[in-house]
Amino acid sequence: MIVYGKNVIREAVFAKRTIFKLYLDDKFQDQHFQNFLKDKQIPFERRPKGELNRLTDNAVHQGVVADVESYQYHELDELIDTSRIQRFLILDGIEDPHNLGAIMRTAEATGLSGIIMSKTGQVPLNATVAKVSSGAIEHVPVCLVTNISQTILSLKKKDIWVIGTDGNTKASYLEMPKNRSLAIVLGNEGEGIRPLVKSHCDMLVKIPMKGKINSLNVSVAAALMMYAAMD
Amino acid sequence: MIVYGKNVIREAVFAKRTIFKLYLDDKFQDQHFQNFLKDKQIPFERRPKGELNRLTDNAVHQGVVADVESYQYHELDELIDTSRIQRFLILDGIEDPHNLGAIMRTAEATGLSGIIMSKTGQVPLNATVAKVSSGAIEHVPVCLVTNISQTILSLKKKDIWVIGTDGNTKASYLEMPKNRSLAIVLGNEGEGIRPLVKSHCDMLVKIPMKGKINSLNVSVAAALMMYAAMD
Repeated sequence: MIVYGKNVIREAVFAKRTIFKLYLDDKFQDQHFQNFLKDKQIPFERRPKGELNRLTDNAVHQGVVADVESYQYHELDELIDTSRIQRFLILDGIEDPHNLGAIMRTAEATGLSGIIMSKTGQVPLNATVAKVSSGAIEHVPVCLVTNISQTILSLKKKDIWVIGTDGNTKASYLEMPKNRSLAIVLGNEGEGIRPLVKSHCDMLVKIPMKGKINSLNVSVAAALMMYAAMD
Repeated sequence: MIVYGKNVIREAVFAKRTIFKLYLDDKFQDQHFQNFLKDKQIPFERRPKGELNRLTDNAVHQGVVADVESYQYHELDELIDTSRIQRFLILDGIEDPHNLGAIMRTAEATGLSGIIMSKTGQVPLNATVAKVSSGAIEHVPVCLVTNISQTILSLKKKDIWVIGTDGNTKASYLEMPKNRSLAIVLGNEGEGIRPLVKSHCDMLVKIPMKGKINSLNVSVAAALMMYAAMD
């Protein structure tokens, strides 16, 4: 798959992702980045900007475009380690790749154990997600599941508490327990968490709001929840 | 100026912004939104989608485009009220309109008293900012200043503490005082806060990070700071 951006390629190199082809803009001049490629013995070819624009569908590629091995998904069982306290995110239908990328970047910074998301109605791990994640896509394992409600039930069997957000509940997001494994559910940008999914949560919390609009961007809500749950 | 998006127009109507022209896509069908316009007696004209795409430079306009009175900036003195505890953001060169829009949305939700930003090297209040802010642009006063460092000195004279972020400092962002007026400085997406600006801060705090990449999106960092400072 085609990916782009300096941080994306740098993290791909660190993660030993297979890079089939790497192209730098004919006029690319960042010596620091070129030294990095040289140190790591990553070969590259020069290409005109127009060709890089075409390859990336006119994305902000920073003059660095690569054809790499696609991002892989993990099985849920690979992510769970009952011997330690873990934190997961469950994404119930995030549609915007910018939101998913932003969520991955914060997930990496907070040491999240993984992101669980639905196979359908959810943006996949694509080049935009990778770019917005600033390369964090290499470090945050993602698991695709067929049915979010069923997955919540299996997490609960493994003693992982499932926490949803609800603007009409009393408990604050700062009251999330810190001494146990948690999975935090975030709903779709427009619709929020679906009622059936919400009914399976062990705890509902709200993020307080004092304005007139009463809604946060989902990647901001995710960040507040991940930091509130961070140990 | 041309703006677009349902939330942007809805909040513009609530804020009594002058709307010179309002266009709906020929195929726009959201009855709820049309009833809102009818209730508020806002006239509109139908236009083909291609024309709306052209007017908005192919933005995601949701079939709603308007020519409205431009967003106005405020004077710093208008925003300061020393009789109560206030929270401000100082943006030291945010370049991406998506980041500014996302910051405004959280600023509105946390009841921020205003955003102070530089006249130069900073994205202005444009249609993308309005759209990403989900209409919050109507409710968060913005002040443009010539010199951020000078502005910090005048804020300090009014007993407003200025807080900067620094990954190498000891104090956590959760240690910000809550019993006094604060102005939180956020730096440019790539460069962070400039050294001179940082040297003027009363307190430096860090947002902890446990990953390898060690950077957060500026709108996420802003949200964590605004929520940590919220009373």
